[in-house]
This record gives sequence, C-alpha cells and structure tokens, in this order.
Amino acid sequence: MDKSRTRRAKRFIRDYNCAMPPVAVPGTLTLADVRAAAARIEGRIQRTPVLRRAVGAAELLCKAESLQPTGAFKLRGAFSLMTALPLDTPGVVAHSSGNHAQAVAWAARELGITAVIVMPNDAPAVKRACTEALGAEVIIVGPDSDERAQRAEELAQERGLVPVPPFDHLLIAAGQGTAALELVEEAGPLQRFYAPVSGGGLMAGCATVIAALCPDAEIVGIEPENGDDTRRSLAAGERVAVPPPRTLADGLRVRRPGALTFPILQKHVARIETVTDRELLAAMGWALIQLQLVLEPSGAASLAVALREAEKAVNPAPGTEGPHWGVLLSGGNVDPSLLASAIATPAPR
Amino acid sequence: MDKSRTRRAKRFIRDYNCAMPPVAVPGTLTLADVRAAAARIEGRIQRTPVLRRAVGAAELLCKAESLQPTGAFKLRGAFSLMTALPLDTPGVVAHSSGNHAQAVAWAARELGITAVIVMPNDAPAVKRACTEALGAEVIIVGPDSDERAQRAEELAQERGLVPVPPFDHLLIAAGQGTAALELVEEAGPLQRFYAPVSGGGLMAGCATVIAALCPDAEIVGIEPENGDDTRRSLAAGERVAVPPPRTLADGLRVRRPGALTFPILQKHVARIETVTDRELLAAMGWALIQLQLVLEPSGAASLAVALREAEKAVNPAPGTEGPHWGVLLSGGNVDPSLLASAIATPAPR
Repeated sequence: MDKSRTRRAKRFIRDYNCAMPPVAVPGTLTLADVRAAAARIEGRIQRTPVLRRAVGAAELLCKAESLQPTGAFKLRGAFSLMTALPLDTPGVVAHSSGNHAQAVAWAARELGITAVIVMPNDAPAVKRACTEALGAEVIIVGPDSDERAQRAEELAQERGLVPVPPFDHLLIAAGQGTAALELVEEAGPLQRFYAPVSGGGLMAGCATVIAALCPDAEIVGIEPENGDDTRRSLAAGERVAVPPPRTLADGLRVRRPGALTFPILQKHVARIETVTDRELLAAMGWALIQLQLVLEPSGAASLAVALREAEKAVNPAPGTEGPHWGVLLSGGNVDPSLLASAIATPAPR
Repeated sequence: MDKSRTRRAKRFIRDYNCAMPPVAVPGTLTLADVRAAAARIEGRIQRTPVLRRAVGAAELLCKAESLQPTGAFKLRGAFSLMTALPLDTPGVVAHSSGNHAQAVAWAARELGITAVIVMPNDAPAVKRACTEALGAEVIIVGPDSDERAQRAEELAQERGLVPVPPFDHLLIAAGQGTAALELVEEAGPLQRFYAPVSGGGLMAGCATVIAALCPDAEIVGIEPENGDDTRRSLAAGERVAVPPPRTLADGLRVRRPGALTFPILQKHVARIETVTDRELLAAMGWALIQLQLVLEPSGAASLAVALREAEKAVNPAPGTEGPHWGVLLSGGNVDPSLLASAIATPAPR
C-alpha cells in the first residue's frame, strides 16, 4: 500500500467532515450542498416514483426508495461521497447492518475500486448475500453498532482503505437529501414530511431540503419504540445513547445520533414518533396490497406513523384534497419469512 | 336519457373502431397514434420506473406498470379512449375481470362521469372492493368472458352508456402502447421484448412501438398454459377460441384474440410462450425479493418467461453487458393469500 495515497485519502475524509467544499458552510448543510450531490449522482441512481394515495384526511406522497437497485436509499449517500473521492483511491471500508453495505459495494463496483464491508451477525441473510454478490469482501462481527464501527476503523488502518461512514458525514447526508429534493420537485409543496431516523444521515439531508423548499412543513422523524435515541437526545438537548435496540427494524438499531447530523436534526425536526414491531408489520402489509411495494420494517416505519396520523385527523371537505404529506419509504430488503408475517398482520386502523 | 346524445356517443365508438382520427391509418395502429395517446394521457398516469437487473445472460429492463395508481397498465388505455370522448358523455360501461374495471372507474371519477362495471364472480375480492371504492357501480355475473361482454352490451343499450371495451379498440391499444414508448425512451434500444397477451390490446400497442423503434427486437407474447388462444390463432392464421382457461392469471382468461388487435399481433409477434401456475408463483416470489415489487400472476407472466430464457442463454463475456430485454410487468393487484403462496414457492432456476 502506498502510504502517501492512504494519507491523502484519509485527509480527504477528515477535511470533508470538517466541511471543506463541496459542503459550502462549515459544520452544516445547505440546499446548495444537496443540489451539488444531486448533480454528482445523476444517472447513477434510480429516479424512484412518488406513489400517491388518499388515506383518511391526507394525501400521502410516498417516495419509494425501496426501488433503488440495491433496495434502499443508501445508494444516494454512497455515490455522493464516493464520486468525490480522489481518482486514485484504492478501496473503501464500511460497516452496516445491510443497506449501507450493499450501497457501498454497488458504488465501489461501478467506480472500479475495492470494498470491504463489516456486517453484524444478525443482518438479514438476503442483505449479506447481495453484498457478496456485488463483489465486496464481507467480515462478520457481533450485533452491536459500536463493535462494527471499531472493526471498520481497524481495517482502514491495517489495509489503508478509505472509510465510508454510514451516516455521520456531510457528503453522505447531502446525498440522502436528494431523495427529498426529487420528492418536492415531483409532488410540489408539502405540509408534513415523515422519514425514519437512525444515525440521522437521511433525515439531516431531507430536513435541510424540506426546511428550505417547504418552510411551513412539519418535519416528523420516526424511531422504533425502544431505539428512541434521537427522541431522548432532542429532549435532553445533547446526544445520548440507548442500549442496543431490540426491534424488527434492523436498519434503525443505531444507539446514538451522529455528531454531525444531530445539530441539523435539532434545527429542523419538529417531533419524533415511535412505532412498535406490530405496527411495522401492519404497515408492510398495507404497502404490499395498497402500494404494490415490498418494504422492510425500517422502510415501513414512516408509513406506519403517517397511516396512524392520517386515520385520526379530520377528513377534508368533500371534493377537496387533504393536506399533502411526504412519506419516505427507505428500503425493501427483507427476508421472505418476515414478508409472510406482514401478510398475516391485520392492516392498521 | 337524451337519445340523440346516446346515438352520438355510440357513433363515436363505432367510428373510432373504424379508425377515424386520431387513429391515423384505418384498421391499424402506428407509432404516431401511440404518441398521440401519450400526449392525451400525460399527467393523468404514473410515469412508472424501469428496474434493471442482470439475470444469467441478459439485462432485464422491467417496466413496473404494477405501480400505476390502480395497480395495472389498464389505466393507460382507459384514459386514452375516455379523454377522447365527447364532452357531454353521460357515463361509461365496461366489463372486466378486475384491472380494466378499476382503470375505467378511476378515469371516470377523474373525468367526472358515471361508470358501471360488469365483473365476474371469480374476480379477486381486492379488485372488486377497489372498483367500488372508486365510486363505480359493480354488477356481478359468471366467470366466462363472453357472458360479461353480453351483459355490458345490454347495459349500454338500457342506460345509454358508452361502452369502454377492455382491449379490442384502437384507442385502447394506442394507450397501452405508451408503456412501451416510455420503456424505450428510458432504456434505449431493446433486443427482445416480453409482454403478456390476453385480448391483445397491450401487445398490439406495445408491439407497434417496439417494431417501429427497435426493428431488430424479437417480440415475445406470453399466455397461460391452457389459455393459449393467441398461440393457436397465430398458428391457424385466424382467430380461434379456447374453453374458459383455468389459470391463476385472472387477467389472462380471455378466450379469443380481439378482432382489431389480432392482425397487429400477426404482423409483429415473433412467438408466443406459455407459463404454468407454478412458474407464475415462482416469478411473483422472485419479484418480491429481487425487485421489491408485488406482482399479480398475470403481471408476472412475462417475467417468468424472461427469467427462464435468461438462465438458459449463454452468459455474456466477463465485464460486458448481456442483451437488453424489455419485460412488461402488467399489474400487481393480488389477494394476500396468493402472495403468501408466492413467498413459499421456490425461485425459478
């Protein structure tokens, strides 16, 4: 391994986290940063459809990121960062419960570089298989997110690989925000926006866009019932950690908000709502029949809350449309057995 | 009912079947007709995504018409015809096993006219429920397609409604062809194109587009094993009927090709392949896991054959792409119990 090359790549990552260009304003994210990411990744990702359904009082405008070629929004962030890497970058390393893994593996294959992925031993078999099929080297560790972060850091040191963080990087967040940009471009102004919150990369990027383009919209984050680290952190005014969450939503098991993403969420997110495993399964079942979409539990989290709130709200006057609520459906990589459970779970009322 | 209005509406339908403008050339369909339909329906239908997957020797470019708001391509044909109706049309009548029913009901609601739909008693419960939810009046008859056609004709006479035929009309076929137009616009030239064949409206429209834009492409129609009326008709050189087909693919139970669509299929379709119920379920299961899409049996028919032929064909040289095969996924309205069967059916090999 060429040491100067490794040093340069590491400096790049450090500098970008310190908000050098193309992140315009140090320490934060602007609409311009998301637009720049959109330009970098254009043609490399799927332009996903916005599916519209009237539910109770609202028009739900569902952005189907589950239809990305890797089955989740994560491809946006991976390409946003990796297209900005120096041309002679030898390879990347990432840690992930699954969807980020596939995204980095996919982007590395497209860009012709090596990818090493650290995955937890409880990741869905389908996610591991897909990551390996994309040509990445997969290394398995325990289920805790801190453990896999540490192993990835070691691999970066040992092999001189550039780490691609799963969420806590402004170029990653800028990339994820392009999903909200496309949603507003296609659907027009929103009165409310729902997205799941794990480390906060998706929400940081999307909230930046929504706050800029729909300043009156209420931005709602969704967490699993016992993985509500962001809800607790927002209440405390600082980042707090929770024990490893037990939830079906394997994409939302992060224990603590990101250092860079949390201040952005503090600025924009109006409230955090939580969902139970049963609600996740019911929303997955609803999506199968009403949207013709397969969602994974994490991918159905925002839908579960949007359905709950749409059913409870007052119906619009006859012949008029309800308020427009954006619903980010983040992914659809799911083991078949879980899909069978979703079909057997009654729809939410 | 104003008799002169009814007469005028009936004359309209007759004239269009006789190929008055906007169908340019009497008795047949051109790319220009499909482009005209695309202009009429723009903004009223979902621009569905093209999902790309490398399978065996081929790149499958899957046009997900299951993501139309009514869950099937039929909305294209319904809007193509109904946007061209005289402004004072009082209402429409249609007969359908389900997807055409929902499409006509949806378009009627959008255009502010009455819709009466004749459905067979074996239509999936979800399709009947959705049609009624759209405000249409549903009338139930036996499972045979001839029986429902006759009842629709009676209703048109009795109530002065304009019949919207499910497939055998050039404006319907032109509308369905817009799916292939979008596919080629987005995916570029194809070497092969797969679509299901029932009455032939979808294939007539799509084959017209593919033959014009990809003249070297092989056009392959798909029918259920014992509903192969079009295969038999093409072999016989004239339209022949089969007994009411027993197949899971409730959208492909038509017994005889359309009078207007059949000559178009004779001109363009290279071959017809058939699929078994088991292959349909396996392709539905593959779509759930590999495409994150819910397909109904009819909607998975073209995929089942594309997968079969992609696995058998010779792999492309390493590092090169295989031939581009367009695969039209026609719909995704399915009862949950059938979805559970699909999950339990092993993937095709």
